[in-house]
Amino acid sequence: MSAVPADLVPVAEAVSCSAICDAMMRLHGHRAHVTDLVSPVPDRWLLGPAVTMQFLPLRADLLDTARHDFSPMLDAAVAGTDPEGAVLVVSSWGHPDQPVAGGKKLSRLRNLGLAGLVADARLRDFEEVVDLGIGAWCRGETVRQGGHEIMPWAAGVPVAVGGVTVVPGDWVYADRSGAVVIPEGDLRAVLEEAAAIEERDAAAVARMAQEDARR
Amino acid sequence: MSAVPADLVPVAEAVSCSAICDAMMRLHGHRAHVTDLVSPVPDRWLLGPAVTMQFLPLRADLLDTARHDFSPMLDAAVAGTDPEGAVLVVSSWGHPDQPVAGGKKLSRLRNLGLAGLVADARLRDFEEVVDLGIGAWCRGETVRQGGHEIMPWAAGVPVAVGGVTVVPGDWVYADRSGAVVIPEGDLRAVLEEAAAIEERDAAAVARMAQEDARR
Amino acid sequence: MSAVPADLVPVAEAVSCSAICDAMMRLHGHRAHVTDLVSPVPDRWLLGPAVTMQFLPLRADLLDTARHDFSPMLDAAVAGTDPEGAVLVVSSWGHPDQPVAGGKKLSRLRNLGLAGLVADARLRDFEEVVDLGIGAWCRGETVRQGGHEIMPWAAGVPVAVGGVTVVPGDWVYADRSGAVVIPEGDLRAVLEEAAAIEERDAAAVARMAQEDARR
Amino acid sequence: MSAVPADLVPVAEAVSCSAICDAMMRLHGHRAHVTDLVSPVPDRWLLGPAVTMQFLPLRADLLDTARHDFSPMLDAAVAGTDPEGAVLVVSSWGHPDQPVAGGKKLSRLRNLGLAGLVADARLRDFEEVVDLGIGAWCRGETVRQGGHEIMPWAAGVPVAVGGVTVVPGDWVYADRSGAVVIPEGDLRAVLEEAAAIEERDAAAVARMAQEDARR
Amino acid sequence: MSAVPADLVPVAEAVSCSAICDAMMRLHGHRAHVTDLVSPVPDRWLLGPAVTMQFLPLRADLLDTARHDFSPMLDAAVAGTDPEGAVLVVSSWGHPDQPVAGGKKLSRLRNLGLAGLVADARLRDFEEVVDLGIGAWCRGETVRQGGHEIMPWAAGVPVAVGGVTVVPGDWVYADRSGAVVIPEGDLRAVLEEAAAIEERDAAAVARMAQEDARR
Amino acid sequence: MSAVPADLVPVAEAVSCSAICDAMMRLHGHRAHVTDLVSPVPDRWLLGPAVTMQFLPLRADLLDTARHDFSPMLDAAVAGTDPEGAVLVVSSWGHPDQPVAGGKKLSRLRNLGLAGLVADARLRDFEEVVDLGIGAWCRGETVRQGGHEIMPWAAGVPVAVGGVTVVPGDWVYADRSGAVVIPEGDLRAVLEEAAAIEERDAAAVARMAQEDARR
Repeated sequence: MSAVPADLVPVAEAVSCSAICDAMMRLHGHRAHVTDLVSPVPDRWLLGPAVTMQFLPLRADLLDTARHDFSPMLDAAVAGTDPEGAVLVVSSWGHPDQPVAGGKKLSRLRNLGLAGLVADARLRDFEEVVDLGIGAWCRGETVRQGGHEIMPWAAGVPVAVGGVTVVPGDWVYADRSGAVVIPEGDLRAVLEEAAAIEERDAAAVARMAQEDARR
Repeated sequence: MSAVPADLVPVAEAVSCSAICDAMMRLHGHRAHVTDLVSPVPDRWLLGPAVTMQFLPLRADLLDTARHDFSPMLDAAVAGTDPEGAVLVVSSWGHPDQPVAGGKKLSRLRNLGLAGLVADARLRDFEEVVDLGIGAWCRGETVRQGGHEIMPWAAGVPVAVGGVTVVPGDWVYADRSGAVVIPEGDLRAVLEEAAAIEERDAAAVARMAQEDARR
Repeated sequence: MSAVPADLVPVAEAVSCSAICDAMMRLHGHRAHVTDLVSPVPDRWLLGPAVTMQFLPLRADLLDTARHDFSPMLDAAVAGTDPEGAVLVVSSWGHPDQPVAGGKKLSRLRNLGLAGLVADARLRDFEEVVDLGIGAWCRGETVRQGGHEIMPWAAGVPVAVGGVTVVPGDWVYADRSGAVVIPEGDLRAVLEEAAAIEERDAAAVARMAQEDARR
Repeated sequence: MSAVPADLVPVAEAVSCSAICDAMMRLHGHRAHVTDLVSPVPDRWLLGPAVTMQFLPLRADLLDTARHDFSPMLDAAVAGTDPEGAVLVVSSWGHPDQPVAGGKKLSRLRNLGLAGLVADARLRDFEEVVDLGIGAWCRGETVRQGGHEIMPWAAGVPVAVGGVTVVPGDWVYADRSGAVVIPEGDLRAVLEEAAAIEERDAAAVARMAQEDARR
Repeated sequence: MSAVPADLVPVAEAVSCSAICDAMMRLHGHRAHVTDLVSPVPDRWLLGPAVTMQFLPLRADLLDTARHDFSPMLDAAVAGTDPEGAVLVVSSWGHPDQPVAGGKKLSRLRNLGLAGLVADARLRDFEEVVDLGIGAWCRGETVRQGGHEIMPWAAGVPVAVGGVTVVPGDWVYADRSGAVVIPEGDLRAVLEEAAAIEERDAAAVARMAQEDARR
Repeated sequence: MSAVPADLVPVAEAVSCSAICDAMMRLHGHRAHVTDLVSPVPDRWLLGPAVTMQFLPLRADLLDTARHDFSPMLDAAVAGTDPEGAVLVVSSWGHPDQPVAGGKKLSRLRNLGLAGLVADARLRDFEEVVDLGIGAWCRGETVRQGGHEIMPWAAGVPVAVGGVTVVPGDWVYADRSGAVVIPEGDLRAVLEEAAAIEERDAAAVARMAQEDARR
């Protein structure tokens, strides 16, 4: 079940990521979009409130395996929130080629009802993700297990992904053309403006077709 | 309608980009090919005479919005030529991650009858490009509007794309394996030599199959 | 015909590249996987014993065209081995954008019965590779002929591809998620452990689904 | 005044960064070194306990200028510690080309008695840093003011710099050959082992000179 | 002899590149600075009006050796201007590793009285440049002659260097900390504001030293 | 003692790396130069016959520590040659950030009388290299010991460094402007042509000074 207010679901389905980004740019000057995300199921788009997880380079001397593992960190990320329809945002802190999760770990996202995840790192087991039914956007696939260079360090904190800061509660939209991060209170305004932009753009395209035909 | 001479259309349809590149290399020593282009419709190949557009890093103090916008610059690029079947070649002058056009702007290429475009920059609205029926090859998709870092500066001038100089009138071929730039007067010679190369290669493959079978 | 022992074929078909990599990591500490390989036919997976070919930057003064060409070098690579089901591993020695072979040259892999190739360089003629029926994993497609910057130098020697050393006889597995290199004597142990890992992982996923449902 | 225990100062002065790194590697398996740091005064080496500052991509909607500026964040970083001889570790969270401070901001490090800073980002005003008398290691110089893409976000938290996690209190060593991060309790053990390594290495070099002379 | 108005010379000598960049940013929003330039004589700073030269990828079929060579192109770049104190700005159009000139070609800059050059490409013969007495900022040194990949194509046109558009007549400042491009009419305003910034910054540094001392 | 024929020593001292590269390019079409080498002692230039060492990614299962270590591999590299004045050429096979040697290992180059080394990898202990009196050109300094990712694999074989193939016996020239590799039999011809080029260039510079003065 989506965390998006019911009346906004059809709006979100109708607008493009570009229109959402345009609408955001009219409200905010900061970079809000992420490009070059890949997915095992690129047709599965995402919109949900962010829950966050942050990795750091491995320090065995600081590692508490009861906390610094994907599963307990996921529990910490969703603690005190409704995980239904949420989007896990995972920051590798600058290690885009490291794996952060595979099919086994990601199955818990499905179990908890999350819509999916956006990670600036790699995932394993793209094929299994297809069956999990979640959306998954990342920096690529890998086959080696994680845990060798980075460790899950904190949850529920502000993180950076693809040059954009995400705080828990921000709305995260992702589809095959890109991702956009929307401040918690701005979802309605952004989606409605995006719909208006789409309408105006379609009218402009029609008008330009007539103008060019007259040449 | 294609700008390619009618008797060369079936030749162009039959030969591969590799064969065209091989044929070019027998006539010219300079680099003539571009790799790593992506497209919203990778099966839509292109062959047409180049019209050119060049971007520069944004300088608001030099900007004349009546000229330095995609639409008037496109008009300038096709001025004095028959746009039917032409290929717009867009050079970002070294900003491959910046957007140069989206669905609205690109609709004018369809209106004017261009075959499509090749750009060393990003495009927005890949999905809309599918419906426009044009070929579009670029460095990737993005969702943020352009105009923040680069500006359309000149049209009808020699430009560089992917390490290859293109002058207006050059023939530009692009398909999913790559692109090749052919000097205006060499199209027939290159396509016919490409067809001959394909024929000789097929014969060589057949001969090698027999030789190996004899081992 | 596969070079894989008949009883291991169904095991190899059932396990994922990730599971194979996990199994390798329990036996060996060195990096054994390669990522970011692309293929004209990404569904065609490979498993076979390596035969190797190594390129070096072009030195015309050292070049013996009777030896330093793809075809004689391929003959040297398979000399004294059964080419049936083998995997040609081609190292460009750090020139991933250079072409090492195209449709014509690769047709001899089919003629000789090789399963396919893994190359840290580019290939030409992706479309022709589809029809050859071989598996082909590489760093991308190009359209320009090789021979301008690198030359085939040696065969049957240890090589490095994607950060992994491969010696002739090593087993090479490759599919769309990645590649793994397995020492000659370890194929059975690795595949059987991979199968066990898959089984344990599936059980863990099922158990976690129950645990999460109880929350 | 250095924060290093007085009896360890001559040891620290005598050993090389390589020897310190070797000594660390005997105690810990994780990556502990940073390379490619540059400095306005490369002869000024650093050793001191870390105080930390973390940047995030700019989000004006989250920005509290009373907190998210270099100067208040520096106050927060040293709060509750003795700043004398400390090393400010600044993480740009993956924005190595962005500026984080210039001569004016860095003058406060001198005022507070810090030994200097290590930043995975750029600094301005290299020339002024010379006169400040602090050590300064970073990713390069720039001339544009900060504040356009990233903002100081938190202080006193674990951060990552050059692939190494640093927690407040860790010892940070930096000279022109590199930097090493040493857990708080390990300084004495690491420096003494480094001194022993230097001694053994010098003996080995002398012995090898004799062996080779005998050839 | 400098092209800078006599009363501004001492101002230009006193201010830093950072202060000039700050002053520019108060007048203009566009990127105006270039980083990571290297020089055979890094202490030799430059300030002069731009004359421009633009390279394109080599096309032998378009090459007119009487025009497309460094020396005639330099003549074209200074045609109709006073070369005394001018700064040649050379754009390689995205080929930073290609050579654009060496000692022989650069000797003509000295002969003509130019202050020096800024090029987003490599130079040869760093040692000879020292004796020429010109300022020279570029992307590094090389030892191979040019002419293999790019050719001088046009002079006196707007060009892009390091992400900044330069038009003939713009003032170009370069020293070891970076370069800044100033529109023709803004030199006095920018330099005077830079001097004011330096003064205010010095006062702020002094004030902060007192504040910190009081802690 | 230099391995260079006595009468060529003053020629080699007088010519620049650029002139040597120009002379090579008149004899050979292949790339023969390397750029971006750094050195602990950039004023120490090198010219000597190559002895070679090749690394491969670590494979513990293939490692014979009696052979696959720097010291025995160096002995193998110089076996059957006069090490006096030779230049060790080390290829990391595409791992430029990995260390291949430090002060201890490099002391044996001095002991054996080698002129120095050129490596496409990092070195440790730049400061110690100064005292060893050898020339050392590489891809940078590091502080972590080697042996974690790559291993010395073979000696006396053709290798590639910086895009250039080097075979044992080739002459290797390196100074702060770059390096050039000269086939064994071409040293005299190349150096004499380089001297002639220098002379012609000096004359051209003088002539151009007069021509420009006449303007």
